[in-house]
Amino acid sequence: MLQPPPARIGMAESEIDTPALIIDLDAFDANLDLMAMLMAQHGTKLRAHAKTHKSPVIAHQQMARGAVGQCVQKVAEAEILAWGGVPDILISNEVVGSDKIARLVALAKICRIAVCTDDAGQVAALGQAAQAAGVVLRVLVEIDVGAGRCGVAPGPAAVALAQSIAAHPALRFGGLQAYHGGAQHLRSYGERQTSIGATIDATRRTVEQLRQVGLSCDIVGGAGTGSFDLEAASGLFTEIQAGSYIFMDADYARNFDEAGQPVSRFRHALFVLSTVMSAAQPNVAVLDAGHKAASVDSGFPTVWQRPGVSYVGASDEHGSLRVADGADVPAVGEKLRLVPGHCDPTVDRYDWYVGVRNGRVECLWPVAARGAMF
Amino acid sequence: MLQPPPARIGMAESEIDTPALIIDLDAFDANLDLMAMLMAQHGTKLRAHAKTHKSPVIAHQQMARGAVGQCVQKVAEAEILAWGGVPDILISNEVVGSDKIARLVALAKICRIAVCTDDAGQVAALGQAAQAAGVVLRVLVEIDVGAGRCGVAPGPAAVALAQSIAAHPALRFGGLQAYHGGAQHLRSYGERQTSIGATIDATRRTVEQLRQVGLSCDIVGGAGTGSFDLEAASGLFTEIQAGSYIFMDADYARNFDEAGQPVSRFRHALFVLSTVMSAAQPNVAVLDAGHKAASVDSGFPTVWQRPGVSYVGASDEHGSLRVADGADVPAVGEKLRLVPGHCDPTVDRYDWYVGVRNGRVECLWPVAARGAMF
Repeated sequence: MLQPPPARIGMAESEIDTPALIIDLDAFDANLDLMAMLMAQHGTKLRAHAKTHKSPVIAHQQMARGAVGQCVQKVAEAEILAWGGVPDILISNEVVGSDKIARLVALAKICRIAVCTDDAGQVAALGQAAQAAGVVLRVLVEIDVGAGRCGVAPGPAAVALAQSIAAHPALRFGGLQAYHGGAQHLRSYGERQTSIGATIDATRRTVEQLRQVGLSCDIVGGAGTGSFDLEAASGLFTEIQAGSYIFMDADYARNFDEAGQPVSRFRHALFVLSTVMSAAQPNVAVLDAGHKAASVDSGFPTVWQRPGVSYVGASDEHGSLRVADGADVPAVGEKLRLVPGHCDPTVDRYDWYVGVRNGRVECLWPVAARGAMF
Repeated sequence: MLQPPPARIGMAESEIDTPALIIDLDAFDANLDLMAMLMAQHGTKLRAHAKTHKSPVIAHQQMARGAVGQCVQKVAEAEILAWGGVPDILISNEVVGSDKIARLVALAKICRIAVCTDDAGQVAALGQAAQAAGVVLRVLVEIDVGAGRCGVAPGPAAVALAQSIAAHPALRFGGLQAYHGGAQHLRSYGERQTSIGATIDATRRTVEQLRQVGLSCDIVGGAGTGSFDLEAASGLFTEIQAGSYIFMDADYARNFDEAGQPVSRFRHALFVLSTVMSAAQPNVAVLDAGHKAASVDSGFPTVWQRPGVSYVGASDEHGSLRVADGADVPAVGEKLRLVPGHCDPTVDRYDWYVGVRNGRVECLWPVAARGAMF
């Protein structure tokens, strides 16, 4: 069953029940505005990735600031957005299985939708389902630009797959998906520049080879919060798929910018609010937020604005804090904010966002696509 | 919103949509029966930990085989069990905060409930709330028996706290909570024996000191799937709090028994069913189940009965498989079972269990306390 919201509109942050997923609305608004400004400067479009927020409410705020639409990873996420009125959705991922593909093509009747592929057999399956549903489905070719995961090789293999899409009466070739996830978390600007440089070269070569066989790319999409300046400056990418910029997790904050400084232009806007439930041991305090409350796949959360207090261990329902000598020991009942190590899967643990401004709860938004993995 | 079930009763396993949380019902029933037999041999009671299954349906099956009740970690989990008819619940954890404590004492009107504490201030808060609600609340003292997390020191500190509970008119001293989580995953039997030996000694000393001041322990509770034979054989522990034995995750299977063999008496009964969504790279296949679908806090999942195929990388929605030379490469669309590295948080990612027997879906059970962290 769904959990009830942990707060009521108007209450003080200190009254919110914990663990709770908090948005600092001032920081969040500033992040939305900054990205819109950066995209305008680059002359590039944002297709924000909804795998971060899982929420039509947030999608609409991004689109009101100029985003052309949303990316998702799963059909179930696309359904939630489409049902919430989002008009243009790209599934930046392969969709496999007859039930899922049937749901995908059904969405083409209520929104503009596109999907990726890296397999000729799947092109046939998508075409057959689109034909049966009486729709024309936009399909992008995913190319492997460094991740070594999904995607055909750039160049001739991608061209051949694009031609098979273009040849199908119920499909339309929509362009290239060229995302290099690993490059987002390379710490130095130089490393990211080298890695994304190779991504851009491989993508440019493929776009050119497609052009030579008469195929143009409506969308050349990719990039994330860690690298998007590079793709946006290439003049090649038409759509930037950043998602995490709205919240900024602890891991992205470990990247360095061109000047060798920690990346800081986007602000931490997402927090897990937690309560100290035990302080029975010296120099130890225990929070009610473990790895069920804040995902640890990209490292532990960090404690917000509490010098000398470090999050050093997570079990299912407990977060262990080490308190440095001389630092204030958190008291039982005290509430602390944590910055999640990785926002996207942390959001997936909650049914509700609690939006806070000036210390008060201003809004409750459902995490509508929580658990939408299908 | 809740996700719809990924299956219908009667369909073949191969037709289940993915990722899905599968129970092998034959293995599950065998695990339930084996634990009931082991408890009977030891003359000890099981108070199964519901943090594993999060389901009144499964709780009732454990109690039908002799379990005296259930443990939970959170008030929200206790509510789900109580609302589902479970009559006897121990929150094996501290509960802090006036809203949570009010909900806790309210449950005392519909079931037998107990909670743990390690703080004198919290004893006062529990007593005040119980008095206001007109109930008598059972409270156990948690002692730190090696985890270095929650719990007062065994011995005099525990006795003083027990006396403060016993002195409150709205509280009743219920005994000791003495759980050593870290010892569950020590790999050799000898290491576990040494570690739990110290746990038992400290607990026995505390029970004796309590007796000397006229306080008896209705419950001496603790132990988990990795160590319970030791606590059960002590003659001291009255209730064993094992939970994972019903499913057996990949990490518990890395423990060794007294004969130096991998622990194998309980069977793997919980799987994440996943689909191959890409096989575009040589010796690589990509599943639709990443760390959102199978928690990685205790290591990656393992691939079930597919020699030469290893799960080597997890991102949010992708699981990367490495295929050894000569092994069959999984085909796009093929479905594979994964054994989760850690069952409890993996279960928390799903709204539904799909029970399978003889290759067919036999039941759908809600993961009723999914997300119940409050």
